[in-house]
This record gives sequence, structure tokens and C-alpha cells, in this order.
Amino acid sequence: MNGTHAETSKTMRLSAEQMPVGVEVDCGSHVVTEDQIVEFASLWDPQYFHVDQEAAVHSDFGGLIASGVHTTAIFQRLAATGVYRKYDVIAGKEIHNLRFLRPVRAGDVLTATLLVQSVEPDGPGRCLVTIHGSLHNQHGRPVLELEVDSLLRSETAIRRSSATSR
Amino acid sequence: MNGTHAETSKTMRLSAEQMPVGVEVDCGSHVVTEDQIVEFASLWDPQYFHVDQEAAVHSDFGGLIASGVHTTAIFQRLAATGVYRKYDVIAGKEIHNLRFLRPVRAGDVLTATLLVQSVEPDGPGRCLVTIHGSLHNQHGRPVLELEVDSLLRSETAIRRSSATSR
Repeated sequence: MNGTHAETSKTMRLSAEQMPVGVEVDCGSHVVTEDQIVEFASLWDPQYFHVDQEAAVHSDFGGLIASGVHTTAIFQRLAATGVYRKYDVIAGKEIHNLRFLRPVRAGDVLTATLLVQSVEPDGPGRCLVTIHGSLHNQHGRPVLELEVDSLLRSETAIRRSSATSR
Repeated sequence: MNGTHAETSKTMRLSAEQMPVGVEVDCGSHVVTEDQIVEFASLWDPQYFHVDQEAAVHSDFGGLIASGVHTTAIFQRLAATGVYRKYDVIAGKEIHNLRFLRPVRAGDVLTATLLVQSVEPDGPGRCLVTIHGSLHNQHGRPVLELEVDSLLRSETAIRRSSATSR
């Protein structure tokens, strides 16, 4: 039963060819808190300017800033819920030019946008999808930009899967 | 008192010029668990093959795999504790060519290595440090590679800071 359910929901996911090439998609916003900055960095990037508020006052940014990996995770959360989960994603493959453009601080509200740049065949039943993504803060200033290559199932594979299930 | 302590510990951090250019540094290992994969991805990358074990059986990898952002965070944790925390880091700037080479699964033991490729002056009192990093699994196979550009304080800035404190 569970297997059938999973296969059904899989065939309901959109194929690579249905990605909106050239359209900028608003993936929504995320509020950054001090607890979140410290909790994330304590686990994954324990440098003083991410985890120690008193010491961070003497850093170049004059206070706590979010880890770049945390900022990247915020983009991924918004991109996954806003776009990727609707599609038949196989896996992420590569991230290019991941730029940390401005410090991210507690209280910032980050909004993600995603633009599908290209969808190209990449072997049987799959495509390489390249997106450009960015996060802007509440002042409209960019804090992160990146390009991501992912592999998605193409329509051919989905037709093959439907035929098999008859 | 706290300010004095923070300033003292700052001047004890190593400068950019003290980074071991050309030497591969072993940054230790991290054990990946299923709970960690699901917990990380539930927050930051909620796609079915990262968070839903039953559905993931029907994915291309036949089971749960870690989010690429999670794998990147594991590298960052090992690099921060093994190298970055000893140095006077200003901030990360850019990540190039972040490649997810193989799936990461529960039970994998990932070992990070870091190679400082170059240390170049980048404005007054700071240097741009470029590192190549990688994670290998318990079978010695690479699962992640990346290049990171970070800004670090240079010796000039540290001398200036010492002079000021007299």
C-alpha cells in the first residue's frame, strides 16, 4: 500500500520539461532569528562571529552574522517548498558561484527568487536543469546568489512509468 | 572585561600569512545518521528522498540520501573546527564548483580534507584565501568537492591592532 502510494505520488510530480524556463518565481520569505543563527552555527559552523554575541561585537561586522551555509540552507528551504517539491527531482548535482554578498543578521527577512535558465536532455529519461537563485533582504538588497544544476526526470521517463503501471 | 577578553583572543588568532599553503590538512570525520539526515532536511530541504524513508525507496537511489546542503554543512563543521577557528577569519565570500559526487547515506563516515591553494592581498590589512576542500566516505570515495574564497586578516592588521592596545 505504501509503495503504491509513493509510486502514485511520484507520477504526479511534474517533469523537467514542465519547468517554467525564463520565468522568475517568488519562493516566499524566511525570518532570521538570533537563536536560529547561533543554533545552526553551533552545529555546523562554530566560528565566533556566528555563535558568540559578545565576541562578535569586536568582529568586522560588529555583531553576530549568519553562517554562509545557513544562508544557503534558507535559500534551499524556500526553493524546495516553492518549486523543487512539485517536480520529479532526481538529485542536486553542482552549485556554481555561490556568493555571500552582504551579512545576514537576526531580524532580517530573506526572500528567495528562482529563475530556470535551461532544461537540457542528460541521458535516458532525465534532464539537467540549471537555475539561478537569489536571496534579498527586507531592504531589497541581495545577500546571496547562486547557480544550481540538478537532474530531473523527463517526460519520456514519466510516460514509460505510466505504461508500466497499466 | 568581556571586551578585553575578546580583543585578546582575537589577537591570538593566526593571520592569513600563517595559513599552510600547499599542505593538505586532515580535518577529521563525521558520522551521518538517519535522524540527522531527516532532521536537517525537514528544516532546510524537505524533498521526499531526504525526509520520507518509505517514499525514498522508490527514488533513483533506493533510499534516503542526505541533502547536498547538509553534506556541505558537514564539510563546513569539520573545516571550521579543524582549521578556520585558529585563524583571524573575517567572512566567507564565495564558493565555487560545489560538486555532489555520490549519495551520502545513514551510517556513512565522512572525512574532510582542506588544501590552502593561495593567500593573496585583498585591500588594507586583509587577504583573500582560496581553499580546495573535499569529503570522502568510509570507502575512500569522494562525495563532495568545493573551492572556497574567504577573507582573513593579514599580519599588517594584527600589528596595527597590537600597537593600538598599548
